[in-house]
Amino acid sequence: MSSMMKAAVFVEPGRIEIVDKRIPDVGPNEALIRITTTTICGTDIHILKGEYPVAKGLTIGHEPVGVIEKLGSAVQGYKEGQRVIAGAICPNFNSYAAQDGAPSQDGSYLIPSGLCGCHGFKATAGWRFGNLIDGAQAEYVLVPDAQGNLAPVPDGLTDEQVLMCPDIMSTGFKGAENANIRIGDTVVIFAQGPIGLCATAGARLMGASTIITVDGNDHRLEISKKMGADLTLNFNHCDVVAEIMKITQGRGADSAIEALGTQATFESALRVLKPGGTLSSLGVYSSDLKIPLSAFAAGLGDHRINTALCPGGKERMRRLLNVVASGRVDLGVLVTHTYKLEDITAAYDLFAHQRDGVLKIAIKP
Amino acid sequence: MSSMMKAAVFVEPGRIEIVDKRIPDVGPNEALIRITTTTICGTDIHILKGEYPVAKGLTIGHEPVGVIEKLGSAVQGYKEGQRVIAGAICPNFNSYAAQDGAPSQDGSYLIPSGLCGCHGFKATAGWRFGNLIDGAQAEYVLVPDAQGNLAPVPDGLTDEQVLMCPDIMSTGFKGAENANIRIGDTVVIFAQGPIGLCATAGARLMGASTIITVDGNDHRLEISKKMGADLTLNFNHCDVVAEIMKITQGRGADSAIEALGTQATFESALRVLKPGGTLSSLGVYSSDLKIPLSAFAAGLGDHRINTALCPGGKERMRRLLNVVASGRVDLGVLVTHTYKLEDITAAYDLFAHQRDGVLKIAIKP
Amino acid sequence: MSSMMKAAVFVEPGRIEIVDKRIPDVGPNEALIRITTTTICGTDIHILKGEYPVAKGLTIGHEPVGVIEKLGSAVQGYKEGQRVIAGAICPNFNSYAAQDGAPSQDGSYLIPSGLCGCHGFKATAGWRFGNLIDGAQAEYVLVPDAQGNLAPVPDGLTDEQVLMCPDIMSTGFKGAENANIRIGDTVVIFAQGPIGLCATAGARLMGASTIITVDGNDHRLEISKKMGADLTLNFNHCDVVAEIMKITQGRGADSAIEALGTQATFESALRVLKPGGTLSSLGVYSSDLKIPLSAFAAGLGDHRINTALCPGGKERMRRLLNVVASGRVDLGVLVTHTYKLEDITAAYDLFAHQRDGVLKIAIKP
Amino acid sequence: MSSMMKAAVFVEPGRIEIVDKRIPDVGPNEALIRITTTTICGTDIHILKGEYPVAKGLTIGHEPVGVIEKLGSAVQGYKEGQRVIAGAICPNFNSYAAQDGAPSQDGSYLIPSGLCGCHGFKATAGWRFGNLIDGAQAEYVLVPDAQGNLAPVPDGLTDEQVLMCPDIMSTGFKGAENANIRIGDTVVIFAQGPIGLCATAGARLMGASTIITVDGNDHRLEISKKMGADLTLNFNHCDVVAEIMKITQGRGADSAIEALGTQATFESALRVLKPGGTLSSLGVYSSDLKIPLSAFAAGLGDHRINTALCPGGKERMRRLLNVVASGRVDLGVLVTHTYKLEDITAAYDLFAHQRDGVLKIAIKP
Repeated sequence: MSSMMKAAVFVEPGRIEIVDKRIPDVGPNEALIRITTTTICGTDIHILKGEYPVAKGLTIGHEPVGVIEKLGSAVQGYKEGQRVIAGAICPNFNSYAAQDGAPSQDGSYLIPSGLCGCHGFKATAGWRFGNLIDGAQAEYVLVPDAQGNLAPVPDGLTDEQVLMCPDIMSTGFKGAENANIRIGDTVVIFAQGPIGLCATAGARLMGASTIITVDGNDHRLEISKKMGADLTLNFNHCDVVAEIMKITQGRGADSAIEALGTQATFESALRVLKPGGTLSSLGVYSSDLKIPLSAFAAGLGDHRINTALCPGGKERMRRLLNVVASGRVDLGVLVTHTYKLEDITAAYDLFAHQRDGVLKIAIKP
Repeated sequence: MSSMMKAAVFVEPGRIEIVDKRIPDVGPNEALIRITTTTICGTDIHILKGEYPVAKGLTIGHEPVGVIEKLGSAVQGYKEGQRVIAGAICPNFNSYAAQDGAPSQDGSYLIPSGLCGCHGFKATAGWRFGNLIDGAQAEYVLVPDAQGNLAPVPDGLTDEQVLMCPDIMSTGFKGAENANIRIGDTVVIFAQGPIGLCATAGARLMGASTIITVDGNDHRLEISKKMGADLTLNFNHCDVVAEIMKITQGRGADSAIEALGTQATFESALRVLKPGGTLSSLGVYSSDLKIPLSAFAAGLGDHRINTALCPGGKERMRRLLNVVASGRVDLGVLVTHTYKLEDITAAYDLFAHQRDGVLKIAIKP
Repeated sequence: MSSMMKAAVFVEPGRIEIVDKRIPDVGPNEALIRITTTTICGTDIHILKGEYPVAKGLTIGHEPVGVIEKLGSAVQGYKEGQRVIAGAICPNFNSYAAQDGAPSQDGSYLIPSGLCGCHGFKATAGWRFGNLIDGAQAEYVLVPDAQGNLAPVPDGLTDEQVLMCPDIMSTGFKGAENANIRIGDTVVIFAQGPIGLCATAGARLMGASTIITVDGNDHRLEISKKMGADLTLNFNHCDVVAEIMKITQGRGADSAIEALGTQATFESALRVLKPGGTLSSLGVYSSDLKIPLSAFAAGLGDHRINTALCPGGKERMRRLLNVVASGRVDLGVLVTHTYKLEDITAAYDLFAHQRDGVLKIAIKP
Repeated sequence: MSSMMKAAVFVEPGRIEIVDKRIPDVGPNEALIRITTTTICGTDIHILKGEYPVAKGLTIGHEPVGVIEKLGSAVQGYKEGQRVIAGAICPNFNSYAAQDGAPSQDGSYLIPSGLCGCHGFKATAGWRFGNLIDGAQAEYVLVPDAQGNLAPVPDGLTDEQVLMCPDIMSTGFKGAENANIRIGDTVVIFAQGPIGLCATAGARLMGASTIITVDGNDHRLEISKKMGADLTLNFNHCDVVAEIMKITQGRGADSAIEALGTQATFESALRVLKPGGTLSSLGVYSSDLKIPLSAFAAGLGDHRINTALCPGGKERMRRLLNVVASGRVDLGVLVTHTYKLEDITAAYDLFAHQRDGVLKIAIKP
């Protein structure tokens, strides 16, 4: 094994490039993974454009599929050579936030301590790969808190089949879980990009019996039917809110999942809700949001608004891998293209411009 | 018993007056209550000012304490002459909304039906007294769906002791219940009017161990200590958000309860929350709300925002009456003044202008 | 319309017979339904055998599908001639129990009241048809609390398609709901009679990814695959507990659903649970149960044991009818035989002896 | 610092003795605590009697209060010399069980692994001190997974004030948390030893408004009033079940907490429950349990039975320490005696025979 590797790093706004980097040393609670497949996420595009700031020279990417190359001295129960994934979010399960029910919100021990300790934790700090530490678009990635974050891949599953588990499947399913779905519910999912499609699959999996998907792209709406949609609405061709009220006989939807991160989708999601309904928000917003008084019943509608960051950890991954292995959901169909790691700038270009029906791209080091 | 009674009715914006009205007939599922004590609510002031529209001639008021005068033919298990209260919100427990977990959101059978039924329900429709039907600021009030809404008053409790149960105790406690409070939590309550004070009492009752109340009125902050506050903050004298971050060592509050209905309180409530925290909103807002991006962690903070309308029904009232009877909470101290029904316009004037340290006024027909 | 009807009544242990009865009068909150299809339940066999005592002369049966013949004067939003079902359990939604979250546990106003009321309620009192009042194996049935219990049947669904909704679908799905199923769970269902098969369908609907069914009858295990089972175990051919531990790599099942009502199924359900797992019990037991110390981790296993009575009410029925209409689940396949009401004694004989692969029998007046 | 320390070890049934032991080395994820105060638990008596088997020579005790003597190389955010406690249960928060919501059920990495990993976990394996590894009745104790388990003690609290946090306060409060308590509930706690007294305090803290305690010892019942009981029942002087039914007007209790571990308390707890009620079980049972058919409504009562093992971890301890610091609950009164570590055999004798009104004994190395 050479001491150097190829890695896609953020150079400056508009530029992510392949460079040579030193393969990192492995601390007692870490593991080094040789990446066999990874992918590009919408968040990476924000990083590429400079909209989401990361350190120059940081390796990008947070969706690792690979093989254990080296285990830290304190990590037990795994073998070098074992196929694994790790979540996009690698929580520190020893943190206050994790023990308090919000593992994705803290991934770091690096808390200034006074005599009696400081309990502060930082939103989204569980997202470390390609954000706070080097990420997965490389030949190797170092997994922090490996004991809690390495998830063995069941035999017989391909890299492509499990490639969605670390991020979009975990996020999309969380959108469904946060929507308080009960058997017989009517659920509307706004936006059918990769995350929204996974939310649709999640809503189907949890027992919603009327699933309505909304997008402006007929191709994506068509794919949403494969993921479980009963009805699709193209917002270019109808008044979505009025249509949903008609479909539900004036009752409104039991829950609505927002999967884009815009005022329009958030607001429509609120407007279609029944009194007592739940808005599950997945999008990464880039500006202040407005809650219209009428959509909110002036605060008297018994509404719930739940937000989420992608759940991680080996138990979450184990469950998602089970779902894949069971054949309940086939997200492999979302992998529309394959590129070599060395060609990743071309892959970024394709993905950023959503050309050629691209949904997700497999990147192979 | 005469066939006529005195009632405070909405005449036009700025004018609520005592008039003579016919005592209503009692349908099979209704009950007629002779009011012994009632009170004025902040919502009534909105009605008085014309900010919340109701029909001209409607009797106002939704907090009835009294005695059963006459029972409908289908109502069982009660006696005429029995002391009872009814919730401010009288749900129709046979409605779809009630069976679906949101009883306050539907109080009416009056749903247009097609062959296969229409399931539409209307936000806040469970609020009927002084909104959709004649209310409690009168000598008599007709309770709809009486079988589900008449709550016997335990012996030994005065009218003043139970006067808060129908509305502000039920609402304030719901604010605490909606805040997902767990033992050892830090909870902040924004605004310490009657509802906020009850939310403070509710948070205390549910096991919060650090309760921080926020208001601009030192007198109300002082009373909040009696209701259970550990710390009080006057927003005129400090930067509330910064102060709470300091108190919690950077962690943020586990939950925040909004009890006023303004952008400032809503926004501050969001800003003091830990990632993973819950904002429980009680206020009746009068304009669109803004969710600032930074306070919301761009949608990635695992936050919850829950709104509520006051819960009603005889079981809810039974529980609140138990709390009063147990001596856990003494809300009688919130009754600062007493007026005769015939003097209610003076009471409205006092209450609307918050003179003389008024919190709640007992009105006696 | 004649004033007389045919009805199957309990005469004495071992004897249910068709007799002529007066068609009942309709009170203000009731509705008279003309039955088009009904069925026989396992509980009816207990009644037939005298194991479950009911009044002599009572009409048996609690699964009504029919047409509204006459509406009570206070019932609104329905039309005579409309196709409806009602749940096997017809809760009184105005009761304390219903408002307290357990509607199936109280169906009666008939509570002795003192001055301050008596809040007592009686387990299973929500089950009225064929238990406390005349039931559905007749030409007509009187639905109590009709406003909360009449559920319109969507156009295009046959009687056979909706015949499982009133009881076994509602019960079986409740078994899955009570099992705290999360995406990716391993769930074991013990016994695959009609209720167990519905529990299997419910577990599948809620996102379990490894569903294991257990029975001694290979034919029923085969049908369980159609309902969603991934793996089936015949307890005559293997050590079920050991097998499940092997399948789950020693982890145990996330939840287990008991669908028969015997010590053996209850105990096995407990033995296959992971620490922290949930046992959802559906069976009607006929003797004391034993909890073996070892299966219970001496009380330290963070286990949950949840029991249930079939949920009823028009909202529950609406949701189940939605599931049927959506095509998610086809329970029509469980209807294996059809008999005329006048031949019901032959139907009872077939059903009691489980001859001819019988699962459920459609009874047609 | 010497290399040797005093420790109370299990020698053989009937014999726990003070011996000299080597002070252990500190691994990267561990911390060495110098004990300033610890105590004896009912479980330790089971160990002493040989009823609960542990290895000969094991140091007993699981309630450490002390000072950090030495931190492992990978443990961050603490200082040597800092006052801390650790829970009786020290979960491995990286385990599958912990990530799956049951941290107390797994404290060990020591899982045999195949290529795809083995997910098995063992009930109660989170209890390590004085069970699987050396415990706290010694001059020093080694805390495993220290990053997740060391909890700083707030300034100003004495050892005695925080001595209940590691075990009986955490366990007793969990009993209340597992009881699904809501504002206005009636809760019965069976047995008022230290755990039961803490459960009473927990029920009070969570908003129960009628708290009934049951024991055969009037002294303990008297103390239970200080912990929050409204009513006490001595089972030697009344029929407890009948009395509770009378108090609740036939309704039954909303929940019952079992805090002893016997058939009699378990069965009575079930018998006093309302349909739909919750039995929260805390006791460590020593033989099979019987569920009487009638108490269980034949499985149709919508009952819940929840068991628990004491929760641990630094966040749980932080919350309990907050409760103590807030003055909400004063459990220091439960510390009735103080002994030196070298006199621990006398302390065991006192505690085992419950002489002299003993509740808990502070042990001082």
